[in-house]
Amino acid sequence: MSNKLIGNAIIGQSGGPSSVINSSIYGAIKTALEAEEITRVYGAANGIIGVLNDQLYDLNLEDSNELELLKYTPASALGSCRHKLPDFNDDDTEYKRILEVFKKYNIRYFFYNGGNDSMDTCNKISKYCIKSGYECRIIGIPKTIDNDLFGTDHCPGFASAAKYIATSIAEISLDTRVYDYGNISIVEIMGRNAGWLAASAALSNLNGVGVDLIYLPEVPFDLDKFVDDVNDIYEAKGKVVVAVSEGIKDIDGKYISEYASKNKEKDKFGHMQMGGLAQYLANVVKARTGAKIRGIELSLLQRCAAHLASRTDYEEAFIAGKAAVINAIDGKSDVMISFKCARGSKVSDYKCEIELLPLDKVANFEKKVPLDWINNEGNNVTKEFIDYVLPLIQGETELPKVNGLPRFAKLKKYIVR
Amino acid sequence: MSNKLIGNAIIGQSGGPSSVINSSIYGAIKTALEAEEITRVYGAANGIIGVLNDQLYDLNLEDSNELELLKYTPASALGSCRHKLPDFNDDDTEYKRILEVFKKYNIRYFFYNGGNDSMDTCNKISKYCIKSGYECRIIGIPKTIDNDLFGTDHCPGFASAAKYIATSIAEISLDTRVYDYGNISIVEIMGRNAGWLAASAALSNLNGVGVDLIYLPEVPFDLDKFVDDVNDIYEAKGKVVVAVSEGIKDIDGKYISEYASKNKEKDKFGHMQMGGLAQYLANVVKARTGAKIRGIELSLLQRCAAHLASRTDYEEAFIAGKAAVINAIDGKSDVMISFKCARGSKVSDYKCEIELLPLDKVANFEKKVPLDWINNEGNNVTKEFIDYVLPLIQGETELPKVNGLPRFAKLKKYIVR
Repeated sequence: MSNKLIGNAIIGQSGGPSSVINSSIYGAIKTALEAEEITRVYGAANGIIGVLNDQLYDLNLEDSNELELLKYTPASALGSCRHKLPDFNDDDTEYKRILEVFKKYNIRYFFYNGGNDSMDTCNKISKYCIKSGYECRIIGIPKTIDNDLFGTDHCPGFASAAKYIATSIAEISLDTRVYDYGNISIVEIMGRNAGWLAASAALSNLNGVGVDLIYLPEVPFDLDKFVDDVNDIYEAKGKVVVAVSEGIKDIDGKYISEYASKNKEKDKFGHMQMGGLAQYLANVVKARTGAKIRGIELSLLQRCAAHLASRTDYEEAFIAGKAAVINAIDGKSDVMISFKCARGSKVSDYKCEIELLPLDKVANFEKKVPLDWINNEGNNVTKEFIDYVLPLIQGETELPKVNGLPRFAKLKKYIVR
Repeated sequence: MSNKLIGNAIIGQSGGPSSVINSSIYGAIKTALEAEEITRVYGAANGIIGVLNDQLYDLNLEDSNELELLKYTPASALGSCRHKLPDFNDDDTEYKRILEVFKKYNIRYFFYNGGNDSMDTCNKISKYCIKSGYECRIIGIPKTIDNDLFGTDHCPGFASAAKYIATSIAEISLDTRVYDYGNISIVEIMGRNAGWLAASAALSNLNGVGVDLIYLPEVPFDLDKFVDDVNDIYEAKGKVVVAVSEGIKDIDGKYISEYASKNKEKDKFGHMQMGGLAQYLANVVKARTGAKIRGIELSLLQRCAAHLASRTDYEEAFIAGKAAVINAIDGKSDVMISFKCARGSKVSDYKCEIELLPLDKVANFEKKVPLDWINNEGNNVTKEFIDYVLPLIQGETELPKVNGLPRFAKLKKYIVR
């Protein structure tokens, strides 16, 4: 049987964006445009929603210079979605529609770029195509700042967020040290169930003063111990910088952020008073210690700050996208691109290779920070974590600037009619 | 009379830090260390507090490579303070102490690096030395991200914060556009009484999609009109990005942030529920429009993000510090270094020259955004503002990195005994 399959390709993105997710689709788009087996390269508008709605962009019509800028452009350039497909044994309506659109455009290659939920989508479509006897090579391209995808050493997007978090906390730490009085800063970091990003705050200490305490979702959060930890350092050093994952939970598994949003009263306009986790914890510590304290939420900045992307990260993201197309052309399908990495005693010993993992092995499993990479006190990470993450944040972005400001890609996004 | 004055120098920093404030003191320290008229160069620990407490660092003992890193290091490396000297006609206790310390160390040069309040301190000490017949050349080196110092075209520190704000909002704007549903982001920006920083959000539109609406303290804030403005864009475009200055006030001059912190109820632990201005406005808009909305506070990040400093800014900061020492050696005193700038039709036409302004002309006056640089609707800025700020944010930092992370200056800070 010949491996050669001629047809068109769809590339889609789903889930939360990252600083380098577009570098992955650039790797896929560029490789697909150059491949003789692939005639037209379509982008799905807002992921699988775009397929369901027959909203595809003709990427063959884009300017190649703008496409190249995708390498440095944050956020999902093709648009994203959070759409969960049902089990097709329960309800195959959407699957029939997807297959209808695939057939309409002779789609023989489908590349889906996203995290856990996206790999679930990718896996289900792959299985449905197999079941239906429709030949389409389907490969998942991993992406998530949360770094919680199973089976891969790490995920594109994580390292740039980690670099941003470490750099920002190193800067914040210097800022908080300028006055002669004590103060405490609590920095809230993304990561709903896995603490990879909050753990990366530890990198802020490598070249100077950074974070003092780190709290991850992997360890049950004890509010009293937290206040004691913070207060101990406050009394010893006067200045404290704390990193907390938004996903920290108490011993009963309840998110601490739920306490932060509870017991809210409406103001005189009828508006709810809100505050995030960082501010909530700041209020708790302030009430118990009286210290000057500030809650800082890194918010969207940590996942879109392409100006501080890791070059290693966006190069690997590009390679992941490229590898998806090359492997599909080579006959592979029903897999996710993953990374197998080797590390040595020096950061430069780091090596990263592509592996293919069956989609049903990665979908819906969450990878957490290993407990033996967290210290006994549950308030910091060990050297093993640093050794793991440090190679990933190496290298600076080559993001082009115009007038001192980033020049991000502007796609024309011609809808296929 | 010969201008030549031999003695020692004190350099101090006060007020809120910035990304480039240390570039100014590096300019002053380097020039002072090289000057034959200046024997020892002392750093005041935490500004004038360090003088009052006889806590001086011997900067002659610092490693020159570490000193050079000050150019790229955020936050006040010598420590800062917020200490207001009384009128010496009412109470000269602290002035006598300052003079005592000046005499103890034969201080003949005093350089003070800060904003409005710091120039007030600098002016008062200068006038007291004149009154006391103690020869000491005293020069203020401007610094404030708020850009509200009177008499100078702009202040070192402002442009780097502006560049950070514009870049971050361009990135946030892309991030908010990835989903197929509408959403609104409200970004809170520093600037208590002058809107220069919030106005700089306008730069985010220069290379693509950025901010839609900007609210400054210079224009009375009308909550109903604000909600209408936001809702109009939300209904037309689906996505809205808003920049608000933390200093916006209602028609009665009351800070809107005061409403945000009012009517607070304590939760079951007895902790106050808090939320910033951005979150307050987000709640107001959400209650009235039902839109998905997010409040983002740039917080300390905007004033300490040296990784995104403007090269123009830190070079000018350096020149300001250097000019202070050169002019003092040349016999000048009782003045602040200021910038006189010329702009042309091209960004590269920009020229910046040093001027000396009498300290009593700059102390305690606040420079606000001219009303004719704000649009008639009071919700954006005009091209005049862009033309003003654009030359200031040009050029990228050369901040050295180690292991992919900033390598900031580490001073030994030997206390003089």
